[in-house]
Amino acid sequence: MGLIVQKFGGSSVADADKIRNVARIITETYRRGHSVVAVLSAQGDTTDDLIAKANEINPRASMREMDMLLSTGEQISCSLCAMAIEAMGYPVVSLTGWQAGFRTNATYGNARIKRVQTERILAELDKKTIVIVTGFQGINKLEDITTLGRGGSDTSAVALAAVLRADLCQIYTDVDGVFTADPRTVTGTHQLAEITYDEMLELATLGAQVLHNRSVEMAKRYNVNLEVLSSFSGRPGTKVKEVARIMEKSHVSGVAKDKNVARLALVGLADQPGIAFKIFSLLAKEKVNVDIILQSIGRNDTKDISFTVGKQDMEKARRVLEEHVDSLGFDHIDVNDGVAKVSIVGAGMINNPGVAAKMFEALYNAGININMISTSEIKVSVLVDVRDADRAVQVIHDRFFAEFGGGS
Amino acid sequence: MGLIVQKFGGSSVADADKIRNVARIITETYRRGHSVVAVLSAQGDTTDDLIAKANEINPRASMREMDMLLSTGEQISCSLCAMAIEAMGYPVVSLTGWQAGFRTNATYGNARIKRVQTERILAELDKKTIVIVTGFQGINKLEDITTLGRGGSDTSAVALAAVLRADLCQIYTDVDGVFTADPRTVTGTHQLAEITYDEMLELATLGAQVLHNRSVEMAKRYNVNLEVLSSFSGRPGTKVKEVARIMEKSHVSGVAKDKNVARLALVGLADQPGIAFKIFSLLAKEKVNVDIILQSIGRNDTKDISFTVGKQDMEKARRVLEEHVDSLGFDHIDVNDGVAKVSIVGAGMINNPGVAAKMFEALYNAGININMISTSEIKVSVLVDVRDADRAVQVIHDRFFAEFGGGS
Repeated sequence: MGLIVQKFGGSSVADADKIRNVARIITETYRRGHSVVAVLSAQGDTTDDLIAKANEINPRASMREMDMLLSTGEQISCSLCAMAIEAMGYPVVSLTGWQAGFRTNATYGNARIKRVQTERILAELDKKTIVIVTGFQGINKLEDITTLGRGGSDTSAVALAAVLRADLCQIYTDVDGVFTADPRTVTGTHQLAEITYDEMLELATLGAQVLHNRSVEMAKRYNVNLEVLSSFSGRPGTKVKEVARIMEKSHVSGVAKDKNVARLALVGLADQPGIAFKIFSLLAKEKVNVDIILQSIGRNDTKDISFTVGKQDMEKARRVLEEHVDSLGFDHIDVNDGVAKVSIVGAGMINNPGVAAKMFEALYNAGININMISTSEIKVSVLVDVRDADRAVQVIHDRFFAEFGGGS
Repeated sequence: MGLIVQKFGGSSVADADKIRNVARIITETYRRGHSVVAVLSAQGDTTDDLIAKANEINPRASMREMDMLLSTGEQISCSLCAMAIEAMGYPVVSLTGWQAGFRTNATYGNARIKRVQTERILAELDKKTIVIVTGFQGINKLEDITTLGRGGSDTSAVALAAVLRADLCQIYTDVDGVFTADPRTVTGTHQLAEITYDEMLELATLGAQVLHNRSVEMAKRYNVNLEVLSSFSGRPGTKVKEVARIMEKSHVSGVAKDKNVARLALVGLADQPGIAFKIFSLLAKEKVNVDIILQSIGRNDTKDISFTVGKQDMEKARRVLEEHVDSLGFDHIDVNDGVAKVSIVGAGMINNPGVAAKMFEALYNAGININMISTSEIKVSVLVDVRDADRAVQVIHDRFFAEFGGGS
């Protein structure tokens, strides 16, 4: 008996039947004696429909008005879910972001939660009322409505679990949990029972779109016990915790792929000190996030620097660097957005030399060329041709997880 | 140059083109140097669509959750309208009911405005910003969202005009103004240039659904200058004011019809003192609004009392009275919902005897039987068979407004 925060994504509340299903999950948890706060996203395509309405009127509408518009999506799903729970005979109240006390900074469209004033929620929980809260939104100090950007509802749920000191934060979605690779494109995957925050963070960043990394970072910072599970199957999900799981055989937790990658290469740079610093501070000033960086010796006392960025930043990065061609002194820029990043993640990796080598071997055996390599304590990433990406994930997964769901 | 509150109903904002049209009306008023606060209803069928969604999940949902759901309709239309104004290059902000300071009592679904805290709106107007406000809604002291019930957006607009001491409150709708009778069903009608609050009140109550009587009552109380006009035609509308218009030839302003009427007759009441008091206090206790009352002598020292109520209250009224058959002592109840009320309204009527007689004459000439009669200083109402109602309006209108748009 404790306090459980449950988050339900857009596909979990897409229509009346699915809302009733969510109401059943919530009320069953309540019947087992728990206090329940549920955080809901907007129904299925509501957000896209609202964006289409806005675009018809003004494709360059202010983010302030977009937030005013989009925040209605969760208000609709939450009130409907509360009605479904009322129909089952349980005490319930739905609250908007501002009613639930979400205060954010002023960045419309991508706001950060500054604090959650929990008086109203606590008063409702005291009365044994089930509380349904709109995810993805809050208000800033002007009392204008803000939205939290991608993965915002996950972040709302984790923030609530943190400030309410909830015993568990369950993220209900349309998959059973976290898998060793994306089960929609890779065969032979299996679900992980547990995973650490750091592994989950790497997987989230790498494009395994189960949980947004903002929410995982927050869960790690406030030590919120997370569980990712399906709102449809009723099966146990994947627990995300600080301390690693009961030691499994595998040192690798999962294989992920990210196709939102572009590679830029500055070719023929003069070999002067501080050149890398210059390049990457120029890009940082323009808010271009750089991921993998590779420096190599070029011809005739020059060197090449290659790096990857998100595809949306590719042209901006190229423009910034070309504007500074004189001070940087390079020959030309190579740009390639036909690449993908494939990564293995695992907290056990650091104590197990040879994990990276095993990955490279799998790729070599499959005739897949490696473009760039990047490693961290719990991750090895390689850049490959985008046409090889799916196959790369499969052969790496086969190598680590073949048979019995456990690699060496 | 002053402050103008403009209200736009659901049909005026039904789609993207209509929202752009509303944005044009607002910005043209702004360009003429006025401060503008616009109050919007939800788009066309939005409210009905939301109600359908709710009914699919819980046909007996609480009013609290219904208000949470329905209030999203105006939030959508207002943010879209603000986007349209942004696209035209004007400074604009949309505000929800609570952001605009609407505080109401606790009656979900039919709340009354208690006060409007205007700080935010005044701050925006000071910055020369156009302010778009969601009609129909506010929050109660729990900070729960409430809606104002039928005609709520008109009431929101008039309340804002009152507290902001606006120079004018324009109610934009899909008709050109107030007519001598409903132009959709009566031929030969013409539009009134001006009308008094009291006449407008009678017409609103009588089913000329241009303005809801709550908003007219409020306009009268706070002396708000109203204008009813079309958002499509661009033509001058009808002004609603305290002081009567420049004396027109006609003493009658309009003819209205109300089909939402049922007649009950208590037959064979003992002729004891206080019986009418007993009957109508029983009905008042059940919140049944009684309109026309007629008392007549029956047979053998008994009397009959007939009265009209709204159709929705007919069964309740019958039940209440039948439960008290012993203490009231009547023979039986006659109930008839096949009736309609037809009325003439005019502030000039009181000084012009013969107006009522002229109305009765018109009905007599058309062979239409009068059931009940009720008169006030500015109104004469008759109850007729519902099948005669449209014809009754036409012959009365012909009698008073034949030729040149003016009766005697």
